This record gives sequence, structure tokens and C-alpha cells, in this order.
Amino acid sequence: MQDAAQAGEPSAAQIAAALDGKTKPQGSLGRLEALAAQIAALQGRLVPKMKRAALTIFAADHGIAAAGVSAFPQDVTGQMVANFLAGGAAANVIAQSMDVPVTVVDCGVRTEPDGRPGLVSLRLGAGTANSLHGPAMAAADAEAALDNGLRYGAAIDADAVCFGEMGIANTSSATLLAHKLTGIPVAVLAGRGTGLDDEALMRKTVILERAAARTGRLSPRAALAEVGGFEIGTMAGAMLGAARKRRIVIVDGFIAGAAALLARALEPRVDRALIWSHRSAERGHGALLDHVSARPLFDFDMRLGEGTGALLAWPTVRAAAAIFRMASFADAGVTERR
Amino acid sequence: MQDAAQAGEPSAAQIAAALDGKTKPQGSLGRLEALAAQIAALQGRLVPKMKRAALTIFAADHGIAAAGVSAFPQDVTGQMVANFLAGGAAANVIAQSMDVPVTVVDCGVRTEPDGRPGLVSLRLGAGTANSLHGPAMAAADAEAALDNGLRYGAAIDADAVCFGEMGIANTSSATLLAHKLTGIPVAVLAGRGTGLDDEALMRKTVILERAAARTGRLSPRAALAEVGGFEIGTMAGAMLGAARKRRIVIVDGFIAGAAALLARALEPRVDRALIWSHRSAERGHGALLDHVSARPLFDFDMRLGEGTGALLAWPTVRAAAAIFRMASFADAGVTERR
Repeated sequence: MQDAAQAGEPSAAQIAAALDGKTKPQGSLGRLEALAAQIAALQGRLVPKMKRAALTIFAADHGIAAAGVSAFPQDVTGQMVANFLAGGAAANVIAQSMDVPVTVVDCGVRTEPDGRPGLVSLRLGAGTANSLHGPAMAAADAEAALDNGLRYGAAIDADAVCFGEMGIANTSSATLLAHKLTGIPVAVLAGRGTGLDDEALMRKTVILERAAARTGRLSPRAALAEVGGFEIGTMAGAMLGAARKRRIVIVDGFIAGAAALLARALEPRVDRALIWSHRSAERGHGALLDHVSARPLFDFDMRLGEGTGALLAWPTVRAAAAIFRMASFADAGVTERR
Repeated sequence: MQDAAQAGEPSAAQIAAALDGKTKPQGSLGRLEALAAQIAALQGRLVPKMKRAALTIFAADHGIAAAGVSAFPQDVTGQMVANFLAGGAAANVIAQSMDVPVTVVDCGVRTEPDGRPGLVSLRLGAGTANSLHGPAMAAADAEAALDNGLRYGAAIDADAVCFGEMGIANTSSATLLAHKLTGIPVAVLAGRGTGLDDEALMRKTVILERAAARTGRLSPRAALAEVGGFEIGTMAGAMLGAARKRRIVIVDGFIAGAAALLARALEPRVDRALIWSHRSAERGHGALLDHVSARPLFDFDMRLGEGTGALLAWPTVRAAAAIFRMASFADAGVTERR
């Protein structure tokens, strides 16, 4: 990947000229045209291919759940993995409505899920350790998460990848990771997750501030090891793997956003593959998006994760790529503006 | 259509309870849940059917084009109708990317289009008269436009209808119609259309203010006849016809918004069928949306029309309806929050 067009590939000016020649007032498709240009530049093709998306849900448990930071018990991670594999979760029915296949990657759910079609095991253990008291994972496990993700992401057979996650307490890990990577205060990033009330949110914030204070400034890899999660590290690696293969990576909400921060910190050029789908209702998401100057496509007050926001953006990404198949003014015999 | 649930149909409380029992934190799908509830209430079913959408592009010419209110010559209306029928326009390629069929309805293009598959003729003449100097159409033609639309809209075989339009100078007719229906000043509603510069916009505004001053307060039907367009009246009728058959009507941008204002003025209960897709870049759209307290799903700075915004909302509408197919906590054996 490089920012300038490679030999034989269209330049940014050629891409813009192709869009401007289509039968519509110039610029009248707004952000859809910007998406189209991004896709063409990423693929290095004036008629990009954007036929198939695939959803992957990365799942793992988090030791910090023991500190009482979530409204749901930890067993729910494994129960939801079973629900994904049975097709009953929100991500499943939304993906089905768009003919998008769903794969669940077990990155370290406490109780190992039963093998089933649609399940991939990249387990690094039975959940992370509690980062309030020590590193969430060994440095070698952080490296393994990234490597697992890299290989997985590079192997996905799709033009665009939607990445979601499941892991009780993972807004806590994402908050800590985003804090370490950006310096945004924990109190700005910490949110209600699956639905904490005011008092529980205050308690969560205090706990996360203590966990953050356990370490100082950290490298991206060290931040993943100290405060991250197995599914967050694996997803970050998968973003890099997919982007290297010139696939569009549709970023979901807050936790996927933290994974994207990590991916960018490791390899800034991943940015050209990222499309930020939505602004979630999770409190810290706005600050995270502002930090990377991302303007997401929509804001539906969603805060579920699972890749549901990324899925909703997929038809828009596909539609954007389709603009290149429009007729030009010349082809269609349409008069240009006077 | 009536606002309370009919016998045998779920109440609003039953719909809300069904959504709350699904395997997700309550309310965590945000506006998607509100859309889901709207669809279930409209259809009167706890598992609504939302399989197929259809796009109709209503096309007609406008006499007020002669006053020099558009950046494109009037011939472009017919040229773009040919482009739609050949599959080369933005609406075509976006619809194709979503497997949505496209129909073009000729409501009165100046030069009658050649008959082709995908073209329906509901012609009321070779374009309207110039509303700067007199009524755009006879009262009988306004009535015929609404009736044609009613029948057409009721006959569409789809769960959701996307309505777009094509007609050089139709932002002018839409501005005048919206002004007459709402009282919002012409200067607030008039915009750049296909791309007027500052001076041309000022000229357009002055022309439209003169056209508006030709008449006083008008009934909805009289407003259509005095300042409307054949395609706007037919689309408004089609919204009523589709809504009466309990189909979701996805409202596109500024011109479709003016048609929706007319439909609401004629039959307020059409509202329960309407989903406002996007906030367009056309200047007056914000004021129009505010007037009906509509909060559109997205804002991509689009200003093309043709139903392109409505199309982009369709996968979200379909996804919203799919929520009802999720497993409940009880079905899936997932623990509810503590």
C-alpha cells in the first residue's frame, strides 16, 4: 500500500474526473462520491469491485468484568456466541437481510464454545486477566492476537469486511486502550456500555482510572497487553490484514473504534481502507472519532456492537462503488450544464 | 388506516415488549428500533414482512424553466428519462446494487419518451405552463395527477416504495408548493438545485417570489394546480395510494419532501407510512423537515434526487424489520441484566 497511485493505477485526479463525467450535476452525490473515490483509490481501479461483504464477530472474555464494570454477568459472552451461531442475534438477522455471511471468531471466551459451522477458533486462553491488578495478557499473547488477526483478515474472501465484537466488559478494555493510545481522559471515554445507571457509571470510571494509573505511557503493543482484550487485538490485526489486501474495512462502534486506533498506531496507512460507519451512543465514541477526524456515515443512537453499525453501512459502500458504472454525459447523450 | 391498533393487531405496547424481549440491551439499537416499531404498527404485524422495495421515478417538465431558474436546459428531462430506461443514471446503478427494480413514470415530459420496458405513461401533457404568469395546470389536471398516483401507488407490488423524480426546474415548483402549503418564505426554501451560483440563485429567488405573489393562500389542491408539477402531484397521490395499502413510503429529498407535504395536507394519516431518508444539501430541505418534525436517517450532502437518497435508506428499513426475527432472551437461554 502506498498513498500515491501505483504504476498503471488511476490517480486521484483521474478518479475525480471519472466521477465528474457521470450523468449528474458535479458533486451532487455528496459523501457518496467521496466514498467512491476512496474505494477506487484503495483498489487502484476506475471501476472498483464491490460485490461481497463478510461479517466477523470477534469474541472474548475480560478479566476486568470481575471488578463489576458491566450490567450483564460474564456468562453472557459465551451465551451470545451460541446465539450468534444459532442465528438469533441482531447481527445475524441484519446480516441475513443483506445476504452477508457471518463468522464468529473465538479469541478467548471463558468457556470454550462447541465447534459449529461458522465458528473459527483463534483462542488465546479463557479470557484475559483483570487489568485492574496486572497486565490483561502476556506480551506474547498480544503479539499472537495481532498475528492471528493479520492472517485471518488477509484470508477473508470479500471486497469489504465488517468487524464486530462480543465480550462482557469490553467497553472497559476499549476505554483503557483508547486512553493509552490517545491520551483522552478515561472519564471522557468511559460510558454506560450495555446500560449502567449513573452510580454504576461513576463506579466504573473510578475503577478504570485506577487501572489506567497502574501504568504510564505505553507503546501500542504494550497498551494492548496491559489493558486490551483478545478480541480487540485480533480485530486490530484483522483490520491490518484486510487493508493490506486492499479490502475496505467498515468500522463499527466504540470497541471496533479502539481496535482501529490500535491498527492505525501500528500502521498508519490502514486509514485509507477504513470507513467509519456510525456514531454510537456510547459516551466516549465522539471523542474517539474526533481524535481521528472521522465523520461517520450515520448516527442512530446505537450501542450494541456485534458489527451491527458496520453492517448498516455496507449497502451504502456498495452503492458508492456502483457510481462508476453510471453512464457519462457523452455515453448517454445528455446535455451538460449551460 | 387508523392510529389505534385494529382488532387482532398488536398494540404499541405489545410491539415495544416484543422488541425489549430480544437478545440485546433494551433500546441498544436506537433509531432502528423506532423504525421497527413503525413498520410493525403500519402493517399490524409483530413479524412484519419487508422483503422487497421498488423505485419509481416520476418525470415531467415545468413551464417555469422558461424563466431561467435552472442550470440545465429543459431537454435534459427527456434525455435523463432515456438514461433511466437505459440503466445509466445514478438511481439505476444504486438500485441495481440493491436488487431494487426501477420504473419510470412519464407524468408529462415535453417530448413523449419512446415506449420501453420499465416506462409507464401517466402523461398529463407536454409539461406544465409557466407558473410565473398563470396556473401551472388546470384544476382537473391536478386532480388527475393525484388520482393517477393513487391508483399507481396502490398497485405497486412491494413492501416499501422509494419515490424519486426528474424534471428540470422542479426545485422551483417544489419551492413554490412547499411555500404555499407551509407559509415558509420562498427565500428560505429556494436553493441551488442542480448547481446555480450566487447570482443565479438570487435571480431564481426573485422570480419565485413573483410567482408566489400571483396568488394568495391556497388549498392543497389549488396549490398543486397553481404552482406544482405533474410529477409532484402524481408522486403525492402515489404516497397516499401506497400508504393506504400499508406500504412503507421512503421519502427522498427536497422535491419528494414537497410531495409528502402535499400528501400529508390531503390525508394526515399518511405520516405513519413515511420514513424520511436523508437531509439533502438543497437549501430549503432543512426548513421543510423541521416543519414536519422529521429527523432524517442520514445526511450525505446529496442533492441529486431520482430517489437516490430513498434507495440508500432501504437496506436500513429492511434491517429494522428484521429485528423482530431475533431470538428472545428466553428462546436463546441468554441471561438478562442483573
